[in-house]
Amino acid sequence: MYVIAVYDVATERTNKMLKLCRRYLHWVQNSVFEGEIRAVELSELEAEALDIMDPTYDSFIIFTNTHVHRVNRRIFGRQRASTDQFL
Amino acid sequence: MYVIAVYDVATERTNKMLKLCRRYLHWVQNSVFEGEIRAVELSELEAEALDIMDPTYDSFIIFTNTHVHRVNRRIFGRQRASTDQFL
Repeated sequence: MYVIAVYDVATERTNKMLKLCRRYLHWVQNSVFEGEIRAVELSELEAEALDIMDPTYDSFIIFTNTHVHRVNRRIFGRQRASTDQFL
Repeated sequence: MYVIAVYDVATERTNKMLKLCRRYLHWVQNSVFEGEIRAVELSELEAEALDIMDPTYDSFIIFTNTHVHRVNRRIFGRQRASTDQFL
């Protein structure tokens, strides 16, 4: 299925969440990722995210869609490279 | 159509982008918004965003989908209120 994932976590957990999401999805912008993923992989991603997160403070949103060809993405402004994260 | 919008702008423009997006969409998390919007409204939102943004630094991503009923959203962790923005 097609997935858009967005996290909002405390600074000290940002790097772990970034690395986790990049293992499963493509980085789009800051804390935004997208990609095709199998249901079993999505379950793994969710479980690993919950291990990293403090659920009383952090937040992780996953939008899913079964039909990737119906989703369009447009980016306005700067096209960021994922290495920007580390500048 | 159904829209997910995510911005990533310099701090001094965050408030303007937040107010703009809230006029057209529902706030979900930090700089993430979603909602049903007509094509003409989406064009307005895009034009107003480009007026606010510095395209050499800021970024604004819009995911669109014609079939809202195919999109599912799951939130893990804290359900943030939009007033968190102002704390």
